[in-house]
Amino acid sequence: MRWAEGFIAVDWGTTNRRAWRIANGRLIEEFEDAKGVLSVGKSEFPAAVAEIRERLGDWPMLMAGMVGSNRGWVEAPYVPCPAGLDEVAAALIWAEEERTAIIPGLSCEPPDVMRGEEVQVLGAVEAGLVPGDALVCHPGTHNKWVTLKGGRVERFRTVMTGEMFNLLRSHSILSDLLKDEMAVDDAFCDGVRRGLEGDAVTAELFSVRAGVLLGRRRKEDATDYTSGLLIGADVGSSIRHGDGMVYVMGRPELTRLYAAALGVAGREAKEIDGEAAFLAGIQAIAGRI
Amino acid sequence: MRWAEGFIAVDWGTTNRRAWRIANGRLIEEFEDAKGVLSVGKSEFPAAVAEIRERLGDWPMLMAGMVGSNRGWVEAPYVPCPAGLDEVAAALIWAEEERTAIIPGLSCEPPDVMRGEEVQVLGAVEAGLVPGDALVCHPGTHNKWVTLKGGRVERFRTVMTGEMFNLLRSHSILSDLLKDEMAVDDAFCDGVRRGLEGDAVTAELFSVRAGVLLGRRRKEDATDYTSGLLIGADVGSSIRHGDGMVYVMGRPELTRLYAAALGVAGREAKEIDGEAAFLAGIQAIAGRI
Repeated sequence: MRWAEGFIAVDWGTTNRRAWRIANGRLIEEFEDAKGVLSVGKSEFPAAVAEIRERLGDWPMLMAGMVGSNRGWVEAPYVPCPAGLDEVAAALIWAEEERTAIIPGLSCEPPDVMRGEEVQVLGAVEAGLVPGDALVCHPGTHNKWVTLKGGRVERFRTVMTGEMFNLLRSHSILSDLLKDEMAVDDAFCDGVRRGLEGDAVTAELFSVRAGVLLGRRRKEDATDYTSGLLIGADVGSSIRHGDGMVYVMGRPELTRLYAAALGVAGREAKEIDGEAAFLAGIQAIAGRI
Repeated sequence: MRWAEGFIAVDWGTTNRRAWRIANGRLIEEFEDAKGVLSVGKSEFPAAVAEIRERLGDWPMLMAGMVGSNRGWVEAPYVPCPAGLDEVAAALIWAEEERTAIIPGLSCEPPDVMRGEEVQVLGAVEAGLVPGDALVCHPGTHNKWVTLKGGRVERFRTVMTGEMFNLLRSHSILSDLLKDEMAVDDAFCDGVRRGLEGDAVTAELFSVRAGVLLGRRRKEDATDYTSGLLIGADVGSSIRHGDGMVYVMGRPELTRLYAAALGVAGREAKEIDGEAAFLAGIQAIAGRI
């Protein structure tokens, strides 16, 4: 079977895409570029896909992420939760017959959706990085809190923390104050503690500006305090019920912030590399074709 | 004394300015334009002020709002709370000697600042529209919750609800869904109830998009639900302690939304016209010159 021999795995998001050539379970070659779904016109996808094959070879291709959304190439309807690798693999959409498949996202109730993170989360279980019953936190533009049960996604909940921070940084009255790199420091932890209290974040946000204007807060602390505040509010509203380890998965520069915030909240956290989890997940799906 | 005979009152905000000629306590003439503080360069203020006199006559001028901020013409340092009309009038900054004065804003602890709203709030007390001991809600880009005691501003708290809604409407993944006019309807009240529960608003916001994608929510309800959600969270975090009437002051299209939300929360609300309150306040300050 051609797929076991080799295939191209693609994580095609809104603003970026990343592709890996995998052969006999080993990673051979990869690349990343800025050709996200939003920069590719509906009719330009076949050419954009051909370009991947020019770079990584003429192999079958399995794609995850926003490429399967209504803004992507071919829409792959959401698979309702609970769902595991079997349900996801059974609902693949073939964009090019026997050559190119798109992995569907997941939906759940109360209404929520994800696309792409499910490959990482289920892949982490498959690879033994996360137990089959666990709470996973997957920070990004849209942070996903995923409840795993028996190795399948039972339900999840999206918190727009990353997008909110980006909106504040790019377009708000606070934007001048939010230009620094984010770090885990005292200001971050202060913000987390304030966010965990569960008051309206929109009230506390203005105090960042007022505090600097009145000389009560250092300008250079504003970025860390604000990111701590938003992450603290996110964590506080998401771990209210339950205890035990939280598995924080994704890009290391984000997982370390959430792991630190969970620590301030008194919860144990374990960071999981999102790339390793994605590759485990997409190979497990390819193995079911 | 020239001021009692006649003067020009200006409310000069970030994006708009409004000017009124007042003589012997009566409103003679007025205009509004889009020449907000951010569109006027530091050196262009004398010309922008002269232009007001060209339109309304060569009278003394009293100005409130962001024109006195560090982005405005001449900075008028904040007066610390508690503060009433006497303290504000005693701290006027003269931009042009005996001709043009700028009203300072207020500051309080925990760190917060306002510029412009203090004239309305104190003016409403002066005009008998609001009692000297009261809770005032002043919605706008930055909603202000003002506690009055003995006719003075005891303290206040800013919630960035209006700015947050504008950010979501203009730049977020929800922007396509937030294009309608805002109205008080069932979707708005549903949003208010959800917001009052005090969960992280950033979590509930994504459900607006997911609900529409999954056919669980009508697209035409999204604007009202979202504005209700943000206003409900604002109200919920601000009226947790206390009871009695809340005086909602400002532009009628905003005060009616907050009055409705307060009603859903079980609190009595009375709407106060912000313009009448501003004119009462600025005349009371002019009378102290």
